[in-house]
Amino acid sequence: MTDFHAVIPAGGAGTRLWPLSRAQRPKFLLDLTSDGRTLIQQTWDRLVKVIPADHIHVVSGLAHAPLIQEQLPELTNIYAEPAPRDSMAAIGMAAAVIGQRDPDAVIGSFAADHVIADTAAFVAAVQEAKQVADTGLVCTLGITPRGPSTAFGYIEAGAAIPGFASARAITRFVEKPDHATAEKYVAGGSHYWNAGMFITRADVLLGHLERLHPELHAGLAAIGQAWDTPKREEVLESTWPGLPKIAIDHAIAEPVSLEGGMGVVPGDFGWDDIGDFEALSELAGADRDDTLWIDSDGLAIADDGTLIAVVGVPDAIVVRTRDALLVTTRDQAQRVKEVPEALKQRDRTDLV
Amino acid sequence: MTDFHAVIPAGGAGTRLWPLSRAQRPKFLLDLTSDGRTLIQQTWDRLVKVIPADHIHVVSGLAHAPLIQEQLPELTNIYAEPAPRDSMAAIGMAAAVIGQRDPDAVIGSFAADHVIADTAAFVAAVQEAKQVADTGLVCTLGITPRGPSTAFGYIEAGAAIPGFASARAITRFVEKPDHATAEKYVAGGSHYWNAGMFITRADVLLGHLERLHPELHAGLAAIGQAWDTPKREEVLESTWPGLPKIAIDHAIAEPVSLEGGMGVVPGDFGWDDIGDFEALSELAGADRDDTLWIDSDGLAIADDGTLIAVVGVPDAIVVRTRDALLVTTRDQAQRVKEVPEALKQRDRTDLV
Repeated sequence: MTDFHAVIPAGGAGTRLWPLSRAQRPKFLLDLTSDGRTLIQQTWDRLVKVIPADHIHVVSGLAHAPLIQEQLPELTNIYAEPAPRDSMAAIGMAAAVIGQRDPDAVIGSFAADHVIADTAAFVAAVQEAKQVADTGLVCTLGITPRGPSTAFGYIEAGAAIPGFASARAITRFVEKPDHATAEKYVAGGSHYWNAGMFITRADVLLGHLERLHPELHAGLAAIGQAWDTPKREEVLESTWPGLPKIAIDHAIAEPVSLEGGMGVVPGDFGWDDIGDFEALSELAGADRDDTLWIDSDGLAIADDGTLIAVVGVPDAIVVRTRDALLVTTRDQAQRVKEVPEALKQRDRTDLV
Repeated sequence: MTDFHAVIPAGGAGTRLWPLSRAQRPKFLLDLTSDGRTLIQQTWDRLVKVIPADHIHVVSGLAHAPLIQEQLPELTNIYAEPAPRDSMAAIGMAAAVIGQRDPDAVIGSFAADHVIADTAAFVAAVQEAKQVADTGLVCTLGITPRGPSTAFGYIEAGAAIPGFASARAITRFVEKPDHATAEKYVAGGSHYWNAGMFITRADVLLGHLERLHPELHAGLAAIGQAWDTPKREEVLESTWPGLPKIAIDHAIAEPVSLEGGMGVVPGDFGWDDIGDFEALSELAGADRDDTLWIDSDGLAIADDGTLIAVVGVPDAIVVRTRDALLVTTRDQAQRVKEVPEALKQRDRTDLV
């Protein structure tokens, strides 16, 4: 797959994982699964198995670029965004640069902060999706639901795409459902979790963008043309701040799927986005301390291995760092994002 | 009150206050109310208002004596027990020494680890109790119940003692009641919490002891006679290990009250024994950190002032020290004593 490039948009604060995740040290820079590699390093490790290191591109905020470079010393393509402009601008910028260098390139975008247990199954799905993308479709990987989750959007699949082992056309994308709807989706067998992974020819993506979002396309094209010239910084600084902020799901996936331009390769490779501590509590290696559970269970993490004793609190979530401590329960885990918000209001941005 | 002496038995680990309270740094050595003085220092501060410093006596375990001396530099009478022999031996030893020096002495025993909010009211009660003790009764202070607590034993009061403002005869001592019984006690107005404070002439106490526990009396008398001679250590070491272990409540208070030999001075001076974190949570100054309560309440303590965030946990108890962390709830607070037990079983005596 010499014409295949990976784009890793490394954004998102992970505020539901406070106090582990911080504005200056977001989720993707953390070793949440205690296996000695951070989430972005694990992402790198997976991709580099099938994609040459110099075909892997990371798009991040300015503040995080040095830490990413430190964690990924072999990374040569790093794009520091002057300001956050959402995922379409981030992925589109990389696509414009890659397309300029290699008109036949296929790009795959993969989040920096997800975990995947079964790399071989993931690689197989990516390889099939690459072939689907070669045909001119925008392809996504659809996660076989492990249950009726209401935390994810779903991909509704239609007919099989002839000539492929498992690829299907996408009928539409659906927003996070309620529980009853999610149960129907899971029972029906034609819905997959949307993990936000897109594989597409760069020219196809840019073509859709030109048609659907001409202003955004024009800006990205200008940046792409200037990138490998002395004018990179000048054009980036003059163009980037004016780009529309929009997610790739809304900009491309939703409209193109309705036009019949998208395919999905289903996959069951132990994917998780570790959206909150409840999700983290279900991952092996999450517990990182010496915990005494007395009539209690849940997740306990101490950065420094301090002993934690929990007495009579079922489903407890306890996370201790050098400078902060969180106590909640599994069913309240989604609300942890309120903590950084409250800290900002209290002028404790040092802890955000 | 030149013939009045205070005896402070400084024992008890306070295992329900782990991880603040430790075997080597028990409750009475801690500043639980964050006012800059530990509980034994607060006890000293209260007593020294009415009793000369050289009439205050502290009986403690060998291991704690140096720390007590450090916290109470003016203390001259410290008795280090070679081994724990319960409260009767501790108080009886001091009584024997004091009685040897001053045959007319009256002693008051006061726990090292209780809090009292209203010192003036406490002093007034002690002064009345001293006068009751002068008549030959063993007198106790009875705490006016603030509610139907099942955590304390109760003192059942009978007729007023003529000639005193509020002293009453004691009918009997009753064990910790069930809730319904406690409610009757509170409604009746003749029951008081037993805070374990006894005021008695030394000779009266030793007389009761000689009659009811002659073996214990003989040992303590031998120690008392030897104390201010070169034979102190020799007699202490040969005698102490053989002394019966019994609490003063069982040894003296219960039998003597049934004989009509005891009086009680009721008092309402904001007394609390801070038996567990639920009790501590009700005291002003207990919270010692910067806590973010989100749909939560309770008690949060961080030794080092670390920010604690609690999300969706009502009645939470969270206690962070340098080397340990406790998470529980108010209604489970009594069970915290299970933690040090479990730590011993895990060979983590470093944390007990």
